[in-house]
Amino acid sequence: MAEQRITPRSEDYAQWYQDVITAAELAEPAQVVKGCMVIRPHGFAIWEKMQADLDRRFKETGHQNASFPLLIPMSFIQKEAEHVEGFAPELAVVTHAGGKELEEPYVIRPTSETIIGHFFSRWIDSWRDLPLLINQWGNVMRWELRTRMFLRTGEFLWQEGHTAHASHEEAREEVARMHDVYADFSREMMSMPVVKGVKTATERFAGALETRTIEAMMQDGKALQAGTSHDLGQNFGKAFDVTFQNDRGEREFVWQTSWGMSTRQVGALIMTHSDDQGLVLPPRLAPIHVAIVPIYRKDEEKVAVLEAAGRLAQELRDDGLTVKVDDREGIKPGAKYYEWERKGVPLRIELGPRDLAEGAAVGKRRIAPENAEMKGGKEKLPLEGLGVRVGAVLDEFQETLFARALAFREANTLQVDDWDAFQAVFTGQESRFVWAHWDGTAETEKAIKDATKATIRCIPLPGEGPEAEPGQCVKTGQPSAQRVLFARNY
Amino acid sequence: MAEQRITPRSEDYAQWYQDVITAAELAEPAQVVKGCMVIRPHGFAIWEKMQADLDRRFKETGHQNASFPLLIPMSFIQKEAEHVEGFAPELAVVTHAGGKELEEPYVIRPTSETIIGHFFSRWIDSWRDLPLLINQWGNVMRWELRTRMFLRTGEFLWQEGHTAHASHEEAREEVARMHDVYADFSREMMSMPVVKGVKTATERFAGALETRTIEAMMQDGKALQAGTSHDLGQNFGKAFDVTFQNDRGEREFVWQTSWGMSTRQVGALIMTHSDDQGLVLPPRLAPIHVAIVPIYRKDEEKVAVLEAAGRLAQELRDDGLTVKVDDREGIKPGAKYYEWERKGVPLRIELGPRDLAEGAAVGKRRIAPENAEMKGGKEKLPLEGLGVRVGAVLDEFQETLFARALAFREANTLQVDDWDAFQAVFTGQESRFVWAHWDGTAETEKAIKDATKATIRCIPLPGEGPEAEPGQCVKTGQPSAQRVLFARNY
Repeated sequence: MAEQRITPRSEDYAQWYQDVITAAELAEPAQVVKGCMVIRPHGFAIWEKMQADLDRRFKETGHQNASFPLLIPMSFIQKEAEHVEGFAPELAVVTHAGGKELEEPYVIRPTSETIIGHFFSRWIDSWRDLPLLINQWGNVMRWELRTRMFLRTGEFLWQEGHTAHASHEEAREEVARMHDVYADFSREMMSMPVVKGVKTATERFAGALETRTIEAMMQDGKALQAGTSHDLGQNFGKAFDVTFQNDRGEREFVWQTSWGMSTRQVGALIMTHSDDQGLVLPPRLAPIHVAIVPIYRKDEEKVAVLEAAGRLAQELRDDGLTVKVDDREGIKPGAKYYEWERKGVPLRIELGPRDLAEGAAVGKRRIAPENAEMKGGKEKLPLEGLGVRVGAVLDEFQETLFARALAFREANTLQVDDWDAFQAVFTGQESRFVWAHWDGTAETEKAIKDATKATIRCIPLPGEGPEAEPGQCVKTGQPSAQRVLFARNY
Repeated sequence: MAEQRITPRSEDYAQWYQDVITAAELAEPAQVVKGCMVIRPHGFAIWEKMQADLDRRFKETGHQNASFPLLIPMSFIQKEAEHVEGFAPELAVVTHAGGKELEEPYVIRPTSETIIGHFFSRWIDSWRDLPLLINQWGNVMRWELRTRMFLRTGEFLWQEGHTAHASHEEAREEVARMHDVYADFSREMMSMPVVKGVKTATERFAGALETRTIEAMMQDGKALQAGTSHDLGQNFGKAFDVTFQNDRGEREFVWQTSWGMSTRQVGALIMTHSDDQGLVLPPRLAPIHVAIVPIYRKDEEKVAVLEAAGRLAQELRDDGLTVKVDDREGIKPGAKYYEWERKGVPLRIELGPRDLAEGAAVGKRRIAPENAEMKGGKEKLPLEGLGVRVGAVLDEFQETLFARALAFREANTLQVDDWDAFQAVFTGQESRFVWAHWDGTAETEKAIKDATKATIRCIPLPGEGPEAEPGQCVKTGQPSAQRVLFARNY
C-alpha cells in the first residue's frame, strides 16, 4: 500500500488519469491479456452502484433482463452490410473448441444486435408480442489497438437494450425514452452535465438509421460520448427476418432499437470530478459515503473515541449510508486522510477527545463548496442530530459537483463563426466545446476533422444548445440550419 | 403463445424437464451456438433473485466483487498440472483477433483460478494484505458434448469466489463458511434440502486439496451437485508465485480457496418442486408472487372488479410483493389460470363481483398444503387485512415446499449393506440416495460406478448423514469408518 504519486493535471492529463485510477485502486491493465483490464473492488463497487440505478430505471420503463450467448456465428455478423463493415476489424474469433477445429468460427460478441435479432425472429409472431423490451447486462469484446482503462478496452462491461416495435413511431419514442434515461442518470447520479443530441451519419452506429447520444465535457475540454440510443429502423429485422402479423393480418418487419451504457462511464466520472489529490465521487455513486477517522493518543482516549466512532457509524448506517471506521493501528491520521481522499470518499469525519468533549465531530468534504466559510475546508458537525446533517452535507456535495462541472463546461464552451478562430481553439492538445454552423455534408465534416481533429459530437436536440438559427458553415460558408457541437473527443 | 403440452413426469422425466422450461418461457437452446442457451426474461428474473440474495450473503461475510478478463493466456491454464488435465478437453480457443493470428492463443475462461492467481501475485505482498476476499459474477465456457438447459451448457453464468489467506487453517475456515452459505441459501431461499459433505479425490475440483459440496435430490431420485467450495491449498500459489511476507519477515505461499454456484441452480429448482402442470417456485425466488385474475361479464362489473384488483395489487406491492394484475382482454380466466400455473406463480387471486360483494377474494396456492381442507384447493381471503394474510400464505408456501421436498428425499433414501440390494436400487433408470459403507479406495469407487452408474456424491459432514459407525464396504467387505452417499447424478 505504498503511497502513489499523482501527476498533476496541468503536467500531463493522460498520466494524471492513470495515476488516479492506480492510487484509488480502481483498476489496472491486465497486461497478460492485450488491451484488457482488471476492475478492482473499489472500481467495481462504483460500477455496481451505476448498474443498480440504471437497472431500476430500465425496469420502471418496462424492460426485462435476459441473457444471450457470448459467441455469435461469424455468418450472423455478415448479414447486415454496414454492421459487418463497422465491426469486422475488431473481432476476436474462436476457431477451436473441445479439442477440434470448428466448422464455422464464432466471434465473441462486440454487440448483440445480430444474435438477438435471430431470437426475436423466433419469439415474435403477432402484434400481440410487441413491443418486446429486453436488456442484457454482460461483457463484450472489441479488439482495439489503442486502449485506455475504462475508456477503451478490448473487453468491457455494459448493458445493451434491444427492443422491437410494431411501428417506426413507437420505436422512435423508445429511442428518445432511453436517451432521456441516460441523460437523467448522468445528471442526477453522476453529477455530470451532458448535451443531448443526434449523431451525424458518419458517427452513427453501424447499421442504425439514427443514433442519439449524450456528450459530456472532460476536464481537458474533450468530449466523451457517454451513452447512445439507436433507431435501427427495419435493418436488422430484414437481415434476420423478424416479422409480425399486424392487426390487419399482414406481415411486416418489426422496427428495432438498441441502446447501451458501459464501464466507460467510470472513466467519465473520473475525468469530470477528480483532482490532483485523486478520485472525487458524487455521493450517489460512492461505495463509501463517510470515512470516520478516530484520533487519540492515550489508551483511555482510544476506548472512548472508538466507542463514539462506532455509535456514530451505526447511526449513519441506519440512515442507509455506507460508513468506514478507519481504526487501523500503526497508521497516522494524516495518512488515513490522504488515503480516503485518493479513494474519493465524499465526507471524512475526524473524531478526537476534544471533539467528543464539545459534543461535536469535524467534517471535511472531499471538495469544499464554493464561497463556503470553512476554516481549512472543515466544518463542525454537532453529534446531536448528526445523521440529518450528514445527509444534507452529502446532498449539497452532490449538487456542488454538478454545479462545478457545469460552470467548467460553460467557461469552456464558445460559439465560433470564423474558420481561423475555429482552428485556433484546437491548437496543440487543446479542446473546448464549440458551437458552429456546418453545411450538413460528410465532406465538410471530414475536412474539419482532418484540419483540427475536432469532430461533430452531435446535432443538439431543442434546448440542448444555442437556439436554432440559420447561418453559414464555419468551413465552407454554405447555408446551415443550426449550430452543431464540435470538440475533440475520447 | 400457443399452449404448450407438458409431458407427464411418469412418462419421460427428461422431456418433462424441457417442457416445463419451454412452457414457462424460462429458456431455450440457442441451437445456432452449440450447447449454449438463451435465458429468457422469466428465467433470468429467477437468476437475478438468486444473485441478489447470494451477493448479500457474500458481502455480509466480507467479500468484495471484482472483474477479471474473460480471456486467459493458454500458458496460464497449463501451469497447474491437475487443473489443465481437468479443463483442457473443454476449452474454447481464440486464435485470431483484430484481423490477425495471435502469437499465443487465449482460452475463454472455464473458471478463473489461473488468471486470478496471477493478479493475486501482483496485489499481495505482506500478511497485512490478507485475507483477500474476492468474488466475481460472470460467464464461463466449458465445451460440453452433452448439454441440457441450465444443468450443463457450453456457456453458463455463475459466481466464483477466490480468496487468499495467511494460513491453511484460515483458508479451511473460509471453505467451510462458504459451504454453509451455499447450504443456507439452498434451504432458506430455494426450499431445497441438501446434504453437506466432502467429495472423494476422484470427484474433487481439478487442482484442489479438498472439495466440499452440497447435494440435492431431484424428483427422479438422482443427485444434483448444487454448489462447491474448494480448499486449493498452496497449489495455485506455487503455480503463480503468490507469496506474502509473514509477520516474522519470512516469505510464504498463500493458501487459497475458490467456491462457485451457477445458473445450474435454476435447473435444480425446477427439478425439486415443479409438477405436471408446470413450474413451481418458492416465493422467495419467484419473480411474480401473486397473479390477480379479475372475473367479470358485464361492463359495470368490469369497472368495479378492475378497480378493486388495482387497489388490492397496490396494497400488496406496498408490502414489497410483486403482483401481476392479468387484465388482458380476449383471454378466458381459465386460460389465465393455466398460464400462471405453468409459470410457477405461488399464489393466484381470483376476484369477481360475487367475491367483492362478500368482501373477499379467492386464493389458490400453486401447491395446496398437505392435509389442508380447501375446496378444490381454494381458500377465501377476506379483503380486510389481505396483505398480512397473503404474506402468511406465502411464508407457509415456502415451508410447504421445503417439507414436501424433504419428505420426498427421506422416502427415497435408504441404508444398504448388501451388494445385491445395492445393485437392485440402481436398475434401469432408477436412482435413490443410498447410504453405504465404502472402503475408501478409488478402485472400489470406480467398480461401483461401472456396475451401477452410481457415484459417491459425498462423505457427509457430522450430522448430515447417518451417525458415523464403522462397517464393511458394501462392495469389497473391507473396513469402513462411516457410510457415504451414493446416487446417480446430473
